[in-house]
Amino acid sequence: MSHNSFGQLFKFTTWGESHGPAIGCVVDGTPPGIELSEKDIQPFMDARRPGTSRFVTQRNEPDKVQILSGVFEGKTTGTPISLLIENKDQRSKDYSEIKDRYRPGHADFTYDAKYGHRDYRGGGRSSARETANRVAAGAIARKVLGNDVSIRGCVIQIGTSMIDGDNWDWDEVPKNPFWCPDAKAAKDWETYLDETRKSGNSVGAIIEVQAKGVPAGWGAPVYGKLDSDIANGLMSINAAKGVEIGTGFASAVLTGVENADEMRLENGSPKFLSNNSGGILGGISNGDVIIARMAIKPTSSILTPVKSINSKGEELEVRTKGRHDPCVGIRAVPVAEAMIACVLADHKLRHRGQTGR
Amino acid sequence: MSHNSFGQLFKFTTWGESHGPAIGCVVDGTPPGIELSEKDIQPFMDARRPGTSRFVTQRNEPDKVQILSGVFEGKTTGTPISLLIENKDQRSKDYSEIKDRYRPGHADFTYDAKYGHRDYRGGGRSSARETANRVAAGAIARKVLGNDVSIRGCVIQIGTSMIDGDNWDWDEVPKNPFWCPDAKAAKDWETYLDETRKSGNSVGAIIEVQAKGVPAGWGAPVYGKLDSDIANGLMSINAAKGVEIGTGFASAVLTGVENADEMRLENGSPKFLSNNSGGILGGISNGDVIIARMAIKPTSSILTPVKSINSKGEELEVRTKGRHDPCVGIRAVPVAEAMIACVLADHKLRHRGQTGR
Amino acid sequence: MSHNSFGQLFKFTTWGESHGPAIGCVVDGTPPGIELSEKDIQPFMDARRPGTSRFVTQRNEPDKVQILSGVFEGKTTGTPISLLIENKDQRSKDYSEIKDRYRPGHADFTYDAKYGHRDYRGGGRSSARETANRVAAGAIARKVLGNDVSIRGCVIQIGTSMIDGDNWDWDEVPKNPFWCPDAKAAKDWETYLDETRKSGNSVGAIIEVQAKGVPAGWGAPVYGKLDSDIANGLMSINAAKGVEIGTGFASAVLTGVENADEMRLENGSPKFLSNNSGGILGGISNGDVIIARMAIKPTSSILTPVKSINSKGEELEVRTKGRHDPCVGIRAVPVAEAMIACVLADHKLRHRGQTGR
Amino acid sequence: MSHNSFGQLFKFTTWGESHGPAIGCVVDGTPPGIELSEKDIQPFMDARRPGTSRFVTQRNEPDKVQILSGVFEGKTTGTPISLLIENKDQRSKDYSEIKDRYRPGHADFTYDAKYGHRDYRGGGRSSARETANRVAAGAIARKVLGNDVSIRGCVIQIGTSMIDGDNWDWDEVPKNPFWCPDAKAAKDWETYLDETRKSGNSVGAIIEVQAKGVPAGWGAPVYGKLDSDIANGLMSINAAKGVEIGTGFASAVLTGVENADEMRLENGSPKFLSNNSGGILGGISNGDVIIARMAIKPTSSILTPVKSINSKGEELEVRTKGRHDPCVGIRAVPVAEAMIACVLADHKLRHRGQTGR
Repeated sequence: MSHNSFGQLFKFTTWGESHGPAIGCVVDGTPPGIELSEKDIQPFMDARRPGTSRFVTQRNEPDKVQILSGVFEGKTTGTPISLLIENKDQRSKDYSEIKDRYRPGHADFTYDAKYGHRDYRGGGRSSARETANRVAAGAIARKVLGNDVSIRGCVIQIGTSMIDGDNWDWDEVPKNPFWCPDAKAAKDWETYLDETRKSGNSVGAIIEVQAKGVPAGWGAPVYGKLDSDIANGLMSINAAKGVEIGTGFASAVLTGVENADEMRLENGSPKFLSNNSGGILGGISNGDVIIARMAIKPTSSILTPVKSINSKGEELEVRTKGRHDPCVGIRAVPVAEAMIACVLADHKLRHRGQTGR
Repeated sequence: MSHNSFGQLFKFTTWGESHGPAIGCVVDGTPPGIELSEKDIQPFMDARRPGTSRFVTQRNEPDKVQILSGVFEGKTTGTPISLLIENKDQRSKDYSEIKDRYRPGHADFTYDAKYGHRDYRGGGRSSARETANRVAAGAIARKVLGNDVSIRGCVIQIGTSMIDGDNWDWDEVPKNPFWCPDAKAAKDWETYLDETRKSGNSVGAIIEVQAKGVPAGWGAPVYGKLDSDIANGLMSINAAKGVEIGTGFASAVLTGVENADEMRLENGSPKFLSNNSGGILGGISNGDVIIARMAIKPTSSILTPVKSINSKGEELEVRTKGRHDPCVGIRAVPVAEAMIACVLADHKLRHRGQTGR
Repeated sequence: MSHNSFGQLFKFTTWGESHGPAIGCVVDGTPPGIELSEKDIQPFMDARRPGTSRFVTQRNEPDKVQILSGVFEGKTTGTPISLLIENKDQRSKDYSEIKDRYRPGHADFTYDAKYGHRDYRGGGRSSARETANRVAAGAIARKVLGNDVSIRGCVIQIGTSMIDGDNWDWDEVPKNPFWCPDAKAAKDWETYLDETRKSGNSVGAIIEVQAKGVPAGWGAPVYGKLDSDIANGLMSINAAKGVEIGTGFASAVLTGVENADEMRLENGSPKFLSNNSGGILGGISNGDVIIARMAIKPTSSILTPVKSINSKGEELEVRTKGRHDPCVGIRAVPVAEAMIACVLADHKLRHRGQTGR
Repeated sequence: MSHNSFGQLFKFTTWGESHGPAIGCVVDGTPPGIELSEKDIQPFMDARRPGTSRFVTQRNEPDKVQILSGVFEGKTTGTPISLLIENKDQRSKDYSEIKDRYRPGHADFTYDAKYGHRDYRGGGRSSARETANRVAAGAIARKVLGNDVSIRGCVIQIGTSMIDGDNWDWDEVPKNPFWCPDAKAAKDWETYLDETRKSGNSVGAIIEVQAKGVPAGWGAPVYGKLDSDIANGLMSINAAKGVEIGTGFASAVLTGVENADEMRLENGSPKFLSNNSGGILGGISNGDVIIARMAIKPTSSILTPVKSINSKGEELEVRTKGRHDPCVGIRAVPVAEAMIACVLADHKLRHRGQTGR
């Protein structure tokens, strides 16, 4: 069962609520002998952590990771790696007034329906704060994958504003607070998001992640498919509402002739002339760049009042104060990268287990 | 590990190749005492099976299911249910000429890259024939869900032709060979697909599945989410390239205000005024209709020649003769329904296991 | 979940009842490219199958295995291997009279308590007939392990009669109908079991299995231990009531000095001077012979009447007619060997997955 | 995969090394709404913790449990419960001299063979310190089971000295430092263990655990058997070399007539006249007391020098200084109880999931 675990051979289990003393995860199955320290993980945490620009929540969390086990004298031992991240800036009082209220778009109502009892402070277990663990696990997954595989993500659309593919420049991504590969779009988004935020509203986003250097052969037929595991991983991210691989939904409008990724040889090696497949055929990597996209819905915590009910069966209006992201999609980029890294690390080990390669 | 298994408590494992003696699956975890016979399964098999119209492959398979275990005196015993479907119309000779050729869009190349050895006849394990098992397992899942939950799917887009939402009529679905809920669109598709087929080409499709009657509370937080399990299940279907829940990718362009599914009370019960969430919040069902959509790429087996290579490292052109669907999306509808049924049956049992409800 | 599955990477799922049309199993995770045919499996089936001597049940089952998938042109493809064994000699009428009666020592009462409905014919799912599947899966596991690992088992005690360790000769095992490595004891057992059978009674047994050639390093710490997986596997065999590794229960009476397996070097390689550990330290193989033993209770189906109740809540006496083994321990030897083979094959792949070795 | 996890629906994952900053575990799948605080767990920790008498290791660990998640306002929320136990008294210097030496009976050699790199301080991950986590998880499992099920264990044999069954008095168990139910034997053991300790030696033990109040019907057929899960759980405890259920190994010498647990009715309810089965038939509980025993080998860390080798391939003698238990079996009692509690809690939920009861 994996209610709170992800992966098979490279597997992590997360725990913790937004306003408890700490959150953390246990990463199991890491190969031994890999150099690892907090320094390998922290940069990814910093990329995700809140409070870094006015376009993300102002909650102030250092998100400092501690490794509590599984690493000895600077190298992994092959035993479980326990990671702990303390919660520093909880301000539980912010949430007291919505204790009984069901915020539309949030899991308040469904957690109550399922469990009959929940930690309502800051969304408790359903808070996006949980994703800090994924980023930490993803940093370890990258070490498992090694330098041959590189994974990077970006935001390609915010609300109604899409990037121009012709302007795509990966080097732009770290230069703006939006993970945007299009310098011009990034400019537009600044105004767009400022307006959104000021109007007490929020917007959705589309994220793309690419993984380069994955050899042909990872994945599995039928139910452990690389793409179904990616879909599972990305859809498990808070606010995700859609996932696609390669040309994705747009492939529905293509003909078979248009969609065929033709093959030729280049220096004796197979080469695809296009990549509609997103690097995956029959659930198995084909050696081309793996491309996945996900849709993130607009932040549900908005200042604008919306109709709702409470746990006592009363109708009311909910207006979510507190410190929220006008577009949660932005901070989802390192999380999406991390999930792809974890899926790939898992499949590297699974492939090696079965085939010895 | 679940390379060839799906689900946790309600779990099935499939086996078999397109041109072997048979295919089948083992369904484990079914509650005892449920009335079940082949008659409960066969209608769903018949809905998926090939050869039923000129718009799907002409392979002639009766797809007759045999129950080999787990049912006694007409009722499930709680032990594994083994289902067997014989392959009748294999015509293996059709495939001999593409034995060494990698058909673009197919798993030929990636299976070879992974395993170094594959049953090339009719795609072997990667054939959509495997999905007959899913439909059979789905029929049992429906019995586990009982009459309160109803699951139905349809095709809402073929290639560039979308249905008109205003024409949506579920009663139209069984009246045309396309699972189309819009009588007018179904007419158009007839011409469209005839042309596609005659030109040796194929097209993609978008499928929608709705599940009504799911109580609030099924699902799980974080990694066993109802939506991530659905994404996993749908993306594992052959030719799937995208999955979305509720408003899905379109929610990226909405604002938080637009996207909020506001709540009121109706006869004292919670009621959502809209369903952008697709019936799932925080990975848990909210009691509203569950809505999932998937994109199916155009059939890769086309008569039009495309550039490829073979396993000997030679460049060549591939043209797939044989009997193929001009739009595999059509036959994917009962498969998508079945996967949703299996995910829901699994979560019904998982929810009951943890909470006793 | 694994109610009817065993293993992680090398994993099999069994199905079928004693008196249904067939039984079978699906073996998943086998590495590709291994030569495999029914001929590799059948000898192990023949060693387990009933009717081979007067000391085992006279049910006449050819136990002919059919491979339905996963093997192509004589080699495994890496996809699931489905194995089917038809039930030929069911004689369901033998069991009609005990339909409602709970046979002491059998699972009749507990299956009813759990499921409220069961296939009572010949024990249904709880019949030792299920173990034919394990033997088939074990034959494949041996192929996965290759020739370097050899696994063999024997009966070292029947009822009160133990073998003399000084007479131990593996070559004797196939020469008598008891898998007995002591020619003299085998003689005694003939008389002993004849008497037992004639008196309408039965006896228990102790079985030992040894695995040679397992390299140091297989297994895992804490919860995937090689010995806990072996204990799990052996205890899951019908009628098993105890499992021990190496010196086992006898190690409780030893001192630490006596129990220490001291180490020296032999030609530069580590060598243990004794093997109280049974080849496993901290859950991981140490390179020495792996030794496991299991206790099998006396056959519960006996001709002597015993007090019981029926499902209607009436007291009565039960006397089990039908064709039963006077000592089920005998036929458990190939089953125990098979379970050890499956555990080892699984750990070979798991070790390779994590460490790449 | 479950290298460091145990259970299916009620599942825990442990992490940590003997001399790292802390150890801990994540308990997943606990039903919501159960009252739980550190006070429910601590008494069990105190029963296992070292330094409580001269017969166990003198390491001084308060073993104070902290609940970091999954409990809100005194009740479980259904989300993962993270438990943390700090290591206080590590004295790492004690181990520096055996850094490269393989202590016979320990996992030093096999961890090196598997991983090539290990935390050698105090046995690292293979230390019995890990079992503190099991005891904590077991305390939660007892809450899941509720008051109807009671689980208690004792030591019935130390080295060559067995208790007299006629003296069995559960009330004696907490009155002596050996968990001994026989006051007279406890006296003898005092002298026996003092002598053992003074001679730089150690002895093994046999432990019995009984679970009362388990209803008929828990467990599962074939591979999720209650007894195979118990065997798995007990054998995963450090130094365990054997597990038996009910009459266990002794049932091998019984006849079927002797071994039959006959049934009668008592006030209309089924009643067994004996309990050779140990409360489990066909892998499913029969409502009688569940009885399991395990053999614990003598502590491998002894002051007496024994022959060994080191990682450089040199022969030498090893003498383990440090603070060790003369009989680790004593402290294994609460651990064995905990594992049985966890197996039962898991099967309670699994049974409820499948059958709704």
